[in-house]
Amino acid sequence: MNTYGERRGALYDWMVRENSALALFEDAEGRRDPAVSWLSGQPGDAVLFLYAGKKALLMPWDIHICELYGESDLVIPYTEFERSPFKALRAALEAFKIPPGSRVEIPPTTAYPRFLRYVEDFSDFDIVCRSFGVHHEAAAARAVKDPMEIGIYRTVSAITNDIIEQVEERVRAGSIATEQDAALFIEAACRDRDCEGTGFETIAAGPRRSFAIHAVPAYTKGAFGTAGLSILDFGLKYRGYTSDVTLTFARAPLSRTQERMITLTEKAYRLALSLIRDGAAARDIGAAVDRFLCGAKKRLVHGLGHGIGLEAHEFPLFSTGADNEWTLRAGMVFAVEPGVYDSVQGGCRLENDILLTESGPEVLTYGRIIRLPAQQPPAVP
Amino acid sequence: MNTYGERRGALYDWMVRENSALALFEDAEGRRDPAVSWLSGQPGDAVLFLYAGKKALLMPWDIHICELYGESDLVIPYTEFERSPFKALRAALEAFKIPPGSRVEIPPTTAYPRFLRYVEDFSDFDIVCRSFGVHHEAAAARAVKDPMEIGIYRTVSAITNDIIEQVEERVRAGSIATEQDAALFIEAACRDRDCEGTGFETIAAGPRRSFAIHAVPAYTKGAFGTAGLSILDFGLKYRGYTSDVTLTFARAPLSRTQERMITLTEKAYRLALSLIRDGAAARDIGAAVDRFLCGAKKRLVHGLGHGIGLEAHEFPLFSTGADNEWTLRAGMVFAVEPGVYDSVQGGCRLENDILLTESGPEVLTYGRIIRLPAQQPPAVP
Repeated sequence: MNTYGERRGALYDWMVRENSALALFEDAEGRRDPAVSWLSGQPGDAVLFLYAGKKALLMPWDIHICELYGESDLVIPYTEFERSPFKALRAALEAFKIPPGSRVEIPPTTAYPRFLRYVEDFSDFDIVCRSFGVHHEAAAARAVKDPMEIGIYRTVSAITNDIIEQVEERVRAGSIATEQDAALFIEAACRDRDCEGTGFETIAAGPRRSFAIHAVPAYTKGAFGTAGLSILDFGLKYRGYTSDVTLTFARAPLSRTQERMITLTEKAYRLALSLIRDGAAARDIGAAVDRFLCGAKKRLVHGLGHGIGLEAHEFPLFSTGADNEWTLRAGMVFAVEPGVYDSVQGGCRLENDILLTESGPEVLTYGRIIRLPAQQPPAVP
Repeated sequence: MNTYGERRGALYDWMVRENSALALFEDAEGRRDPAVSWLSGQPGDAVLFLYAGKKALLMPWDIHICELYGESDLVIPYTEFERSPFKALRAALEAFKIPPGSRVEIPPTTAYPRFLRYVEDFSDFDIVCRSFGVHHEAAAARAVKDPMEIGIYRTVSAITNDIIEQVEERVRAGSIATEQDAALFIEAACRDRDCEGTGFETIAAGPRRSFAIHAVPAYTKGAFGTAGLSILDFGLKYRGYTSDVTLTFARAPLSRTQERMITLTEKAYRLALSLIRDGAAARDIGAAVDRFLCGAKKRLVHGLGHGIGLEAHEFPLFSTGADNEWTLRAGMVFAVEPGVYDSVQGGCRLENDILLTESGPEVLTYGRIIRLPAQQPPAVP
């Protein structure tokens, strides 16, 4: 059985135990769910049905893309149903001859007005839309990477590290001097190394714009790597999976506050690493880093980290919210990214990708805070 | 009153008529709603409350970005509520002293399990989640552009046209020879012309990959503009608004099928243009083009068009689904993009941005099918 078949197999078993006859997974604009790709190979824009009788039915929008990538027991073009999930669901129920009254799971992201329409259109079935159903099972399974996925992460990390080095060299040499230089270098360099592209729009923010958590716009023609703090947050996409790292370039002369921000960020990062282990509650680690920053009159204004995979932000979450129940497990791959921000002094963030093994965290990437000497001739203040 | 205040004013009036005391707009990862930006200037990642007593409360994730762009009667950092919309809503109800029993509108995109939580946590209020509530009013208002927005579209269209010309020149001269050449040229050129960047990831697909509606990956180091059909689909973002055009480069020698695909696409485009007028049902125009293509044994495998604005895909829709009730109105700006695809012959698409005026459609951009002579020495088949 191939990888996709194995992944589906585990979910079929779960569905049988839970008495769910059919599950609808939808990947569409505004309702993205990479589970479709993870379960079928189809890279997006499709509806996938899992039938507890151990059959999958894929309805791809682009049938030509499906011929290249899709893997499913049955395939019907989604355009035959006017890309309506309601029509698609009716067809799937008929294709598998599923008897009325059976349980059908729809995505937990289904908007309430759409949920009402499912219930109305399929009043002869038991429509279930719940946070911890088969879709959560798929997301939780995706959070723990299999050996093939870990192999992909070793490769994309090596490429990412190579590009980190090349960017550092070029910033030192002055051939990367603007935010745009940095971002476009990465776009070209990652494709030279067989990546599909970047995993998200590269954020390159020079000292005047690094105060923002996510600079708006993501990069400009403005100076990068000049005196003060510059942030470069990027990810590379390789065989569908994205890395996610952040470098801070700290060019002398730095203010005392900027020096303190660097120290704080590095300490927060080391604190996080020291707490990461199989079985740890992700929320507790986020909370510990927040407490540490609070002691220095700062806050963790964004999540401490997040799983990475087919999307740049996946499970597990490291948010400090009471509803974050994620436990770290061996095989998870996630980004850890503490940062501190100041409207005048700029921002400092350090982010690396980590594979959690049974013996502890293995840092896959070499994101770091890079100190640069004052430029000659020194800038007149 | 400023632009944001005027936009909010129209919604307050609607809320008073509908007896809605408070409306929650949320722009967050996975739940994007540019209405937040349209109503407050905050470029994203925020919760915005509109209170029928004619006050707005903005809760931005990044307070530094808000200081630059946000405009609201009241501002409280979202981090004070752990970025929880439930906690934020409780605070808003208290800030405006809204009495129990009042009607509170939450986004129609709210997932059913989250809807249940709102209803449970706010059982003392009348929580309303509906397709055609205040959020739809905002989306419909955004679909008809005001004079300032139309001015922005004239500017971004001029920049887009300039870049179309430059790309054509470079493809003819051979300095754009790969998909990556085309995409990275656009990234740099648009920033040279004061754009924030591209409105979405540029799709550049040479003859071997143009068969896909949306090529995966979006661009590679592969050949572009060689014999056959190459598609270039891009948009530029200027002051928040995105253009969206598609060029097809048709390099000789072309097969008879490819010639026919070009003719079909151009005819479908002209047919669409001939039907666009104030008061027309967008669905009917999509259906007419689909019927035309069916007569040639093809189908319209994607929507004929879509509104453009703060997002690349906005209202009105041109889908042929029975639930598409959009009527075209003067002041709307939308993209029209018929295309035909073949797994062997490649794809052909033509897309332009159109401002609908009372006297008819005004085509703002010069997207077209560009014929190129055979390369010297001619490729040996």
